[in-house]
Amino acid sequence: MAHDVRVVTEAELRAVVALDLETVDVIEAAFAALASGRVVMPPILSMELAEANGEVDVKTAYIPGFDGFAIKVSPGFFDNPLLGLPSLNGLMILFSAKTGLVETVFLDNGYLTDIRTAAAGAVAARHLARSEIETAGVIGTGVQARLQMKAAHLVRPFSRLLVHGRDAAKARACAEELAAELGIEADAVDAETCVRESQLVVTTTPARDPVVHADWLHPGLHITAMGSDQAGKNEIAPEALAAADLYVCDRVSQCEVSGELEAAHAAGLLMDRTPPELGEIVAGTHPGRTDATQVTICDLTGTGAQDTAIASHVSTRLSGAGTLVRA
Amino acid sequence: MAHDVRVVTEAELRAVVALDLETVDVIEAAFAALASGRVVMPPILSMELAEANGEVDVKTAYIPGFDGFAIKVSPGFFDNPLLGLPSLNGLMILFSAKTGLVETVFLDNGYLTDIRTAAAGAVAARHLARSEIETAGVIGTGVQARLQMKAAHLVRPFSRLLVHGRDAAKARACAEELAAELGIEADAVDAETCVRESQLVVTTTPARDPVVHADWLHPGLHITAMGSDQAGKNEIAPEALAAADLYVCDRVSQCEVSGELEAAHAAGLLMDRTPPELGEIVAGTHPGRTDATQVTICDLTGTGAQDTAIASHVSTRLSGAGTLVRA
Repeated sequence: MAHDVRVVTEAELRAVVALDLETVDVIEAAFAALASGRVVMPPILSMELAEANGEVDVKTAYIPGFDGFAIKVSPGFFDNPLLGLPSLNGLMILFSAKTGLVETVFLDNGYLTDIRTAAAGAVAARHLARSEIETAGVIGTGVQARLQMKAAHLVRPFSRLLVHGRDAAKARACAEELAAELGIEADAVDAETCVRESQLVVTTTPARDPVVHADWLHPGLHITAMGSDQAGKNEIAPEALAAADLYVCDRVSQCEVSGELEAAHAAGLLMDRTPPELGEIVAGTHPGRTDATQVTICDLTGTGAQDTAIASHVSTRLSGAGTLVRA
Repeated sequence: MAHDVRVVTEAELRAVVALDLETVDVIEAAFAALASGRVVMPPILSMELAEANGEVDVKTAYIPGFDGFAIKVSPGFFDNPLLGLPSLNGLMILFSAKTGLVETVFLDNGYLTDIRTAAAGAVAARHLARSEIETAGVIGTGVQARLQMKAAHLVRPFSRLLVHGRDAAKARACAEELAAELGIEADAVDAETCVRESQLVVTTTPARDPVVHADWLHPGLHITAMGSDQAGKNEIAPEALAAADLYVCDRVSQCEVSGELEAAHAAGLLMDRTPPELGEIVAGTHPGRTDATQVTICDLTGTGAQDTAIASHVSTRLSGAGTLVRA
């Protein structure tokens, strides 16, 4: 039986949804749902295309009470910049949770992933960072470095920003852009200064060796590590994870195979405990930061629940946007 | 960077691709590629939506030498017929294997899955059934029962068909339809007669208890079991699998968790051997049927390699079909 499928492009999506507090609240609710234990979220499907220096991940989750569920496909092809193309791409599909029919195809080139990922950083900052942040730091200089700092500024309006990147010119450009956009002071610095002088740090790199060392931790620091999303990636030294007063996963089962927890376990650390999940802290079933001097770390690998939440949210805003195809 | 994505509907696909010998050859080549060991085919992503009596599977595979790879989403929502909707649905997406960019979205409602699944049945019949088939039998009366018999008739042009279904009226309707379409004699019969009087049988049911018993096997019989695709499903009695001269999987790693091999292992049978895969027989690296009196069984769970093969094949036939969306 033929039915209408809406096909929406990145440009059409950018016109109706942005990284704002409403988006942060939508993603926060998805984390709370995850903590309920009623969300169905299978392991990520992951395929490597070694010949093309590429990989593709597929994520999904069913959140009870939601009318739809998303399936999100994220290809990463790391030689694309040589062709003038971005490394990351993909699309998201929203299905009816009652009939399984395809409702909307979001040809978003990864835009919805970008904002739901940044929004998760804001959720972590809201629940784990100190209430007052003067200086924020970011390690990495790409799209997520910018979006994570914009998201953090929504919930913790810092006045000073420190940016570290391996390429100093890129770090300066990132700092200048964010200074102008957020109306704050910003500088490019070395990694150690970035961490030591900030109260809130986000790491956004594909590093395979830690970019944050344990002896840089200081009272009151919160770190969100969002770069690791594949086995072998590692941004935070295992000893830092072990030294933190509170280490939180978005999903333990994902962090132990593709997040910071993987390297910690490989180093024989954090073997004796199951870390709390961000959703438990959002839902209030596990304490978050309990005083201003604690060191907290949040490990984000990205969840299908965020994809279902952002796709469902956007679908309510589309009005007539997109192309209807009678399928 | 914006690029054109082609969106193609089921009706547009039906106009350019059908279940024919060319399609069978395309799927046969995919099986041969699987046997090469160079295909990358991750485990199926599977999610249950118990509240809606639904499930969704995602399959993919990268076949070296192919310009694209498909990701296929198959929702099955088994209360849909109460709403006047088919249970099975879904879509397929073809990505560039060089850049990961989305090239084509096939809003096929499962049509490409239907024909690539039936084509796999023809590949099994071509390599495992006797060269001369007088009577073919099918258990089940749905879309795949019809397509499997049409596919089998392409490679083994039988003159008599026996159909068994739990609903005798549906079995008669299926037999009449296929008799008219294939120009053969066809009758609705009980399951035992269907198996005992046929040289080629295909089972197409969602059975959780065997519909084919071991004492019905007879010299020269070939059975293709294509219904089981989830844990707990089981069409062929484990004793029949053990008694066959040759038992072949489409993919051993899938059959042992969601095919006939799962029930056989649960019964303590076939524990001492790794069955050959259909691709090895197609490629000639494992013998198929070696004489007309052997009993052979092929277990099809459905592979991502078939999806990549059919999507790549169809994409060469589209010419200007579909809607171009600048994404």
